[in-house]
Amino acid sequence: MSRPPAKVGDPVSAIDTPALVIDLPAFERNLEKMASFAKGANVRLRPHAKTHKCAMIARRQLALGAVGVCCQKVSEAEDMVAAGVSDVLVTNEIVGETKVSRLAALAREANISVLADHPDMVSAYSTAAERFGTTLGVLVELYSGSIRAGVHSAEAALELARQIDQAPGLRFAGLQAYRGPAQHIRSFDERLRASQEWCESVRAARDLLQQNGLLCESVTGAGTGTYAFEVQGGVFTEIQVGSYAFMDADYGLNLDEEERYVSDFENSLFILSTVMSSNTPEFAVVDAGAKAGNVDQAMPSVWERPGLTYVGAADEHGAIEISPSADPVALGERLWLVPGHCDPTINLYDWIVGVREGRVETVWSVSARGALL
Amino acid sequence: MSRPPAKVGDPVSAIDTPALVIDLPAFERNLEKMASFAKGANVRLRPHAKTHKCAMIARRQLALGAVGVCCQKVSEAEDMVAAGVSDVLVTNEIVGETKVSRLAALAREANISVLADHPDMVSAYSTAAERFGTTLGVLVELYSGSIRAGVHSAEAALELARQIDQAPGLRFAGLQAYRGPAQHIRSFDERLRASQEWCESVRAARDLLQQNGLLCESVTGAGTGTYAFEVQGGVFTEIQVGSYAFMDADYGLNLDEEERYVSDFENSLFILSTVMSSNTPEFAVVDAGAKAGNVDQAMPSVWERPGLTYVGAADEHGAIEISPSADPVALGERLWLVPGHCDPTINLYDWIVGVREGRVETVWSVSARGALL
Repeated sequence: MSRPPAKVGDPVSAIDTPALVIDLPAFERNLEKMASFAKGANVRLRPHAKTHKCAMIARRQLALGAVGVCCQKVSEAEDMVAAGVSDVLVTNEIVGETKVSRLAALAREANISVLADHPDMVSAYSTAAERFGTTLGVLVELYSGSIRAGVHSAEAALELARQIDQAPGLRFAGLQAYRGPAQHIRSFDERLRASQEWCESVRAARDLLQQNGLLCESVTGAGTGTYAFEVQGGVFTEIQVGSYAFMDADYGLNLDEEERYVSDFENSLFILSTVMSSNTPEFAVVDAGAKAGNVDQAMPSVWERPGLTYVGAADEHGAIEISPSADPVALGERLWLVPGHCDPTINLYDWIVGVREGRVETVWSVSARGALL
Repeated sequence: MSRPPAKVGDPVSAIDTPALVIDLPAFERNLEKMASFAKGANVRLRPHAKTHKCAMIARRQLALGAVGVCCQKVSEAEDMVAAGVSDVLVTNEIVGETKVSRLAALAREANISVLADHPDMVSAYSTAAERFGTTLGVLVELYSGSIRAGVHSAEAALELARQIDQAPGLRFAGLQAYRGPAQHIRSFDERLRASQEWCESVRAARDLLQQNGLLCESVTGAGTGTYAFEVQGGVFTEIQVGSYAFMDADYGLNLDEEERYVSDFENSLFILSTVMSSNTPEFAVVDAGAKAGNVDQAMPSVWERPGLTYVGAADEHGAIEISPSADPVALGERLWLVPGHCDPTINLYDWIVGVREGRVETVWSVSARGALL
């Protein structure tokens, strides 16, 4: 494991770069805002730990009333349970005997649920749960478009739910209905419409199951781009938001009702970088490239430094274009970057540095970093 | 740190997924081919450890005659030195007191050199080396186009080389001349021409320095896309290739003289993945997404499975399109993916599994993974 870029008590100026830094007051306001929203709307909040992969952040979310966390990988779930999280929903289909066994065994330690979209998975989950003498909650995943997992009709959902309901060691736990592609539709109206249509599909599936005696204790989904719409739709009982804690440059491009950039949540997560080459007025190079910030969906943006644009990432270098109107960029200057896409960016780091009022207050381990299995 | 996906002696079928797997015989042939090439061409081989971040692989390269390794970060260099590498060139400008101090201190343990493109760096290196009573080799980096570091003229190189030559604690060690943007020019003729022009610029800078009494003990650069051209140019004394050990989907799109895909080196590195959803004949989902394989330059390709195309990555899911002519894809089937871009992909993993004749022979730690500082 790499060494931490700072120690508690350091001034911000002493943080070595590139480093992943949380502005703790902004982060805490984000956590509180979503927690109050969920409370007010009477939906359960189950934040997605795939975003932060950090047990300490999960504990903060639970302390504010989250019912548990979502994970995407069995090994992520193991990390969260080891840190004291007692309820984990693995929002993924788990295939392969090693992983299914680990998942069933983990259900000895905590309340574990998982998704299925095929009868073979249900059989495999059941066999493993019986072997370990545990119970796994299983939700049916509804297909939401594009190339993704899920069953393709309400009838298929019903059939699979029946199988789960009858399988030893399993408990039918409801529907997983996360519509990933809708999260980043920029236009407010289109995003709203996509979510409303989605809510109607989900409602139809839920109603069919309930008419057939299969009660959905949970209808769960929604992300930071659409959570308010899903909640308005009245069919979701639980939201799985992750990025709200931090925001990122990509979510920041979504528009609100008045065509302004969304401002539900504050940017609380930054890549602190240093200018390591600055030999012309037109451009500079920072020490944070593709290994310090994922660029698959959006480039990082430069925070509060007008006229500077992060235009490209080599493995270890970020390319900064300097507009003629910008203040000059000095060698050694530190630039704060808003990550393009927070989830895969956090997964690059072993440490998150939390700062408040100019000082390092926490250095958190990204405890589930690299938990791929 | 995450748990290893396999143990030595396991059959390949027991490797948990997603996992990074090396085909050891192909990897060894790649290492030997480049080592013989360098020997035959009478240039030094200094493989880039930013590619693999793995001390065990560096040791393999040294055993075949490499003079040392390149690193991109001070913390990467620390990892390599701790593993017994006695000569490290940090092919980067290092800015910031913490890192410069660590670099100067590391020169107590091994032969360390580093780049400069600005007088302030030279002063900082000199101050630190004096403080620790060590000597740092310093090379002047030549600007090679696009938004990158480096000095912008031969005259500027001369001036900086003079400063280095006179600075206490420093040794002028030559020129760094890596032309990144040329590596992935697809056309053979254009790639050759770009490299030839580059060799002429580098020669002019070297000649100016030597005419002024500043001998370049090293003129170093070149990557897997252009190394043969730089060596033909006759001015480079050292090559810094990294990807040759593995190849990746991106390098695999370069063309040779006869407009076929290049075949200098074999694909030896794979992301082993499992199909986790397959509910239609048109597409499937594998358990390897953006956190298991970087997609910033090219998508992974599917190995020896005609008609399957990896078309997109969500964080934890890979989207596989299935052409009508392809064999059907079964839930649980294991697909071997060639990484789109090997360097940032390896940096996602804690472990590399080496296989030979159907069995796991090694599980190597990616010892410098996440070494960002």
